[in-house]
Amino acid sequence: MGKKTFVSPFVPEKLPDMPPILGVRLATAEAGIRYRGRTDLLLAILDHGTVVAGVLTQSKTRSAPVEWCAKQLKNGCARALVVNAGNANAFTGMKGHKAVEITAKAAAEAVGCPVVEVFLASTGIIGEPMDASRFAHLLDQLAQDAAPDAWHAAAQAIMTTDTYPKLATRTAKIGDTQVTLNGICKGSGMIQPDMATMLCFVFTDASIGQPALQKLVAQAADRTFNCVTVDSDTSTSDTLLAFATEAAAAHGCPHIADAEDQRLQGFATALHDLMEDLAILVAKDGEGLTKFVTVDVEGAENDRAAHKIALAIANSPLVKTAMAGEDPNWGRIVMAVGKAGEAAERDRLAIWFGDTLVAKDGERSPDYVEEAVAQYMKGAEITVRVNVGVGNGRATVWTCDLTHGYIDINADYRT
Amino acid sequence: MGKKTFVSPFVPEKLPDMPPILGVRLATAEAGIRYRGRTDLLLAILDHGTVVAGVLTQSKTRSAPVEWCAKQLKNGCARALVVNAGNANAFTGMKGHKAVEITAKAAAEAVGCPVVEVFLASTGIIGEPMDASRFAHLLDQLAQDAAPDAWHAAAQAIMTTDTYPKLATRTAKIGDTQVTLNGICKGSGMIQPDMATMLCFVFTDASIGQPALQKLVAQAADRTFNCVTVDSDTSTSDTLLAFATEAAAAHGCPHIADAEDQRLQGFATALHDLMEDLAILVAKDGEGLTKFVTVDVEGAENDRAAHKIALAIANSPLVKTAMAGEDPNWGRIVMAVGKAGEAAERDRLAIWFGDTLVAKDGERSPDYVEEAVAQYMKGAEITVRVNVGVGNGRATVWTCDLTHGYIDINADYRT
Repeated sequence: MGKKTFVSPFVPEKLPDMPPILGVRLATAEAGIRYRGRTDLLLAILDHGTVVAGVLTQSKTRSAPVEWCAKQLKNGCARALVVNAGNANAFTGMKGHKAVEITAKAAAEAVGCPVVEVFLASTGIIGEPMDASRFAHLLDQLAQDAAPDAWHAAAQAIMTTDTYPKLATRTAKIGDTQVTLNGICKGSGMIQPDMATMLCFVFTDASIGQPALQKLVAQAADRTFNCVTVDSDTSTSDTLLAFATEAAAAHGCPHIADAEDQRLQGFATALHDLMEDLAILVAKDGEGLTKFVTVDVEGAENDRAAHKIALAIANSPLVKTAMAGEDPNWGRIVMAVGKAGEAAERDRLAIWFGDTLVAKDGERSPDYVEEAVAQYMKGAEITVRVNVGVGNGRATVWTCDLTHGYIDINADYRT
Repeated sequence: MGKKTFVSPFVPEKLPDMPPILGVRLATAEAGIRYRGRTDLLLAILDHGTVVAGVLTQSKTRSAPVEWCAKQLKNGCARALVVNAGNANAFTGMKGHKAVEITAKAAAEAVGCPVVEVFLASTGIIGEPMDASRFAHLLDQLAQDAAPDAWHAAAQAIMTTDTYPKLATRTAKIGDTQVTLNGICKGSGMIQPDMATMLCFVFTDASIGQPALQKLVAQAADRTFNCVTVDSDTSTSDTLLAFATEAAAAHGCPHIADAEDQRLQGFATALHDLMEDLAILVAKDGEGLTKFVTVDVEGAENDRAAHKIALAIANSPLVKTAMAGEDPNWGRIVMAVGKAGEAAERDRLAIWFGDTLVAKDGERSPDYVEEAVAQYMKGAEITVRVNVGVGNGRATVWTCDLTHGYIDINADYRT
């Protein structure tokens, strides 16, 4: 099977302008870990005093760098982040831990910090030993080259099957001081994050206590990355890290230790919006997609039940192939609601494609005209809304269709 | 997208010879419910005294005929079974119940029995009203035509996207009397049965009490149909019914009321084997498949955990596309084990493709030679074995690969 060059129809016309974040410098390199002729190594250097919060994959077979991050998150201080693309360093046994140690040590020496303040993430093939000695020596040079404006390059260096770099930026006021949040992420396949997406890194100059940052990040992840699915497969490597350099304190930004502090409200909203942007960018780069699909479920027993029903719809191969075929096949939506296992009143079920009510009271709507919806299905962005007629629970999940492109990409990724 | 004519590579060279079952007669017709130029209606007539047991879909949006069967199973007596293909009569509201009543009444009159002894199953499109008056009048003629040898025709009439009819037969001894079991089933997509497959009907001349038959059927379903998945989607219509005519009693077969009765051991084994045959025939006719895949999980905390891990592997789009690409991608197996959420010891995990150990102790096996396994992956039948290193739980799940054929079939099934 020949690999076709797939490009998402949602490639942004222009990448966002990314302002610098005080206390963050970035550099990238071509390490040749798996890819040729492109960058695949990122070093982010963080000023002294940076706190870090994060959420990591719940997979039972998580990768060596994820285990490393879990350990260092307990300290909550960060001076460096090293990310490589091409090899996930997952299911690599003792060799995997060794590769983590080599990388962390090299980064610590290059940056001049304790190894426990180095954070690591690897993405790419699972199960192949990763030879860290092939790129660890590059970190010295990267530390010298690191610059505050290399955001686009950073987002590019962490891509695997992604067809575009994923970046977002926001500002917020804390007290009277404006702070900035920048985020980069990657992900395209093996995407049903369980606490985080494949890889996402958020940077801010705000001055926030580590426990408060952790709480805000976890809350935002639940409503953003945990609501994205491309193919129902949860990665061994999902990593979301948020770094707060506290550099804005020099400009009068108050240090805030309590996540409930009213002064953090604007920051929390900006963080949520930034992460939602990035999560949607992941779904819009789903492997092989032709359609971006939003699944809104309402009327469920509670929000958790709504989320489970929305995921059942978004992950159903039959729903996803119907989307690819531009077929408003509400029967498959009904099937997916039924298999989710959550309370649903079949005879009060209502389904909309876009604004058109296609089914209500447990059967096809008498006013339904297929032609109108068929036209809607030709669009690149489809919204399916389902009311399951039980309670007030609601949830939104973002996904994409399942196409020949997905098969092309994944039937020959490794060999 | 043009529909390609897909045919499973596992089409049996020859359908099994099906002996008659005393007390069962069959007839089929072309009702034109959805298909043209093929039969789509089956009537089975059962002699007076037939008991029926069954398991039905656990979907929360189950079809009108499934609800009808659930109600009549409480009586446990059957004189007729009517099955139509082309319309599932699911999510059809009050119209659906009306269609069920019209069909049951027509069958009861044709056969000469109470309506509560008529069992119904419908398969095909979901959400379109079914006009039973278009075929109910055919049942009189079918009742006159019904014959004991129409098994192949019966299996053909209930097909939808199936590419071959699915039949199996067994004999067993109860006391000194030989009894026969015949089974037919259909299913190809929307297959992850939850208590039964799409449609499966088993007939026997044995004389077994209804509660005992129910127990044996439920046990066998758990180890057969509930271990098959094509695409993780659970139908609104899954129906497994087993009819025991008791006709063998005339030949000295003892009536047995207790499922634990030692004399039923041979029958229970034959029933399990028959249902396993049929379940595997379903997986081997998975929509668009090129490979039949057996997933054996061992070393899990318990059998239930093993089953959940096996399903996570079998349903992973990334594992299924790797199979299609003949890629022994153990990294994706590791990923799927990790996402299943059940206990697994990553550093004791072992994975085999066929007889070749590809990974052990949490990393690639040092003896692994890719070429040998690559050759194995070219075969049509692939077995993946995984030991998750925790306990003694084990399970087997049967599935197939995910191919362009699946997309072709499902991106334009309805329109």
